[in-house]
Amino acid sequence: MPIDNPYYSAAVHGDFELADIGDLVLEEGATLRGCQLAYQTLGTLNGAKDNAVLIPTWYSGNHSIMRDTYVGSGRAIDPAEHFVVLVNQIGSGLGTSPHNLAGPYGRGRFPRVRIGDDVVAQERLLREVLGVEELALVFGGSMGAQQTYEWAVRFPDRVKRAAPLAGTARMYQHCVVWAQTLVDALTSDPGYAGGWYRDPADVRGGLQRHAGLFALHVLSNEFWTGENWRALGFSSPEDFVVGFLEAYFEPMDAGDLLTQAWKWQHGDVSRHTGGDLAAALGRITARTVVMPISTDKFFPPEDCAAEQVLIPGSQFRVIEDVHGHASLFGLTPSYLDQVDDALRKLLETPA
Amino acid sequence: MPIDNPYYSAAVHGDFELADIGDLVLEEGATLRGCQLAYQTLGTLNGAKDNAVLIPTWYSGNHSIMRDTYVGSGRAIDPAEHFVVLVNQIGSGLGTSPHNLAGPYGRGRFPRVRIGDDVVAQERLLREVLGVEELALVFGGSMGAQQTYEWAVRFPDRVKRAAPLAGTARMYQHCVVWAQTLVDALTSDPGYAGGWYRDPADVRGGLQRHAGLFALHVLSNEFWTGENWRALGFSSPEDFVVGFLEAYFEPMDAGDLLTQAWKWQHGDVSRHTGGDLAAALGRITARTVVMPISTDKFFPPEDCAAEQVLIPGSQFRVIEDVHGHASLFGLTPSYLDQVDDALRKLLETPA
Repeated sequence: MPIDNPYYSAAVHGDFELADIGDLVLEEGATLRGCQLAYQTLGTLNGAKDNAVLIPTWYSGNHSIMRDTYVGSGRAIDPAEHFVVLVNQIGSGLGTSPHNLAGPYGRGRFPRVRIGDDVVAQERLLREVLGVEELALVFGGSMGAQQTYEWAVRFPDRVKRAAPLAGTARMYQHCVVWAQTLVDALTSDPGYAGGWYRDPADVRGGLQRHAGLFALHVLSNEFWTGENWRALGFSSPEDFVVGFLEAYFEPMDAGDLLTQAWKWQHGDVSRHTGGDLAAALGRITARTVVMPISTDKFFPPEDCAAEQVLIPGSQFRVIEDVHGHASLFGLTPSYLDQVDDALRKLLETPA
Repeated sequence: MPIDNPYYSAAVHGDFELADIGDLVLEEGATLRGCQLAYQTLGTLNGAKDNAVLIPTWYSGNHSIMRDTYVGSGRAIDPAEHFVVLVNQIGSGLGTSPHNLAGPYGRGRFPRVRIGDDVVAQERLLREVLGVEELALVFGGSMGAQQTYEWAVRFPDRVKRAAPLAGTARMYQHCVVWAQTLVDALTSDPGYAGGWYRDPADVRGGLQRHAGLFALHVLSNEFWTGENWRALGFSSPEDFVVGFLEAYFEPMDAGDLLTQAWKWQHGDVSRHTGGDLAAALGRITARTVVMPISTDKFFPPEDCAAEQVLIPGSQFRVIEDVHGHASLFGLTPSYLDQVDDALRKLLETPA
């Protein structure tokens, strides 16, 4: 039985559309019948159909945070110029997800979904529903960067430009280990009950520990040592953990997060080339700028740099910010300026 | 009621002595009546009584791992030259600890112990039991480094040389947050039962998650990316997590670990100077070499460097190793050579 979770609603996240993209046969073998993608578009597809920008979502995130943080009038991605398609990943809570799926694959039986499944679903949405066959840009952060890489490797002739931010094309083991601590925090909560809790809040303890793990890893040491939580309006480290991180995660659905966590752990474009990462990244024809965040513990610049050198004609640009992976939330103007500058230059580059 | 845990025995850890150092009034207010310290000595105190070396223990560790890793014939610390005193910290499982303490303060009611309490207890042991009033060297890693700093700040006239390895004089918030994930992993296990489990293995799930957190943080990214677990005899990342980390932690007592974790989180020599770290470290008269490990996530070199510059006449030496904080286990000969070289030079320095 699906369960009601008011967090995953237009009331919280603003308007979005739902598209039925048909039966989605997943890489791991199951089929999501009548798979629904939740998306929002801004701007208009031009006559040449060459101004579409695709923005997928990160772990725990959705279209609204991407829109509010990275899209706007006067920004690098501007609905006055671009046809912006913001699409929520499968399992995000908006669109087909464990908590809302009726039938045999719902809840604790939700199948394993891979980054590649999202990209196949998004390609259908773009082509069949929105009439888009070419992307001027794919831009995403974290798991959105994983989807960006998958797009550029899987559909090189469709993607003119790619901007993976704070993410990698293949998961590194330290990040697999990290995501496993999230999985363990949630599934070990007795309230989780194998995914068959009656109320999302039954997993409150697990969600709190999950937030505590983000406190450890989503921020930088410099953030804590420099007491940067003060500038964000918090009175102590504990106040920041409760008021920011616990508040952020507590309304979410544990099963939805677990679907995303497994997907995160298994992102790997080298599946397309028998495990040869250089061969996979060598397929990319998009003009690509690889953007790690300087203090990111999940996807440190050195991991991103090792991949960037394998992408033909690509550029490497470190975004400097003190907030670690959480910089993605756009906590400082200078962060947003750097990202916008990189995106502007990329969009101005002929492809 | 104390519980039996065969891990904390001479059969596992080799011989040790137990000394009753009397009633220990703790900084946080409780009293450990008839507090017992477990220790081992090697070598002989010379006539001048100036060859004593004190080696305290780290989180989850004990005298035997310090002895087997850092002491020996031909090593920098050599029982042929030094009177080596290896002392287990309070709550380590050997000596007074939650799992073995009878009476009102046992088990789930074990009081909060600080690094300073250990140092006071050790000073009594040395003076009253072993006749030692001057230490040629205090050397410890991780929480052993915390005790080393506490010794050098608290008893500057007793400590001639200090070698804190992979640890800091004051806890940094990122490390507090880290240790809290350990606490949460253990206490959230329903089997923990507020500390009143009947069998140490009742907290097996919590101990496994605790091991998973160490997989995340005690090793370096380079360790995982470079598949250095192969050189340690493991067949996969999972094999390493189960065969090394889970095997290491599983026999331990959750309550003992929690006592150590709280102590770890609250180490801070600036308690002696009203929060002024520079003033506290400025008290140190010992010849001091500060030794961070290059890939350590707990105590990164930058944190150690910031403290080292506050210690009069001190030296800074980064120990290069790929195993992160787990380098402390002495997993490579080059690591041990670097540590021994630093200790030799320090011991040769007149104090």
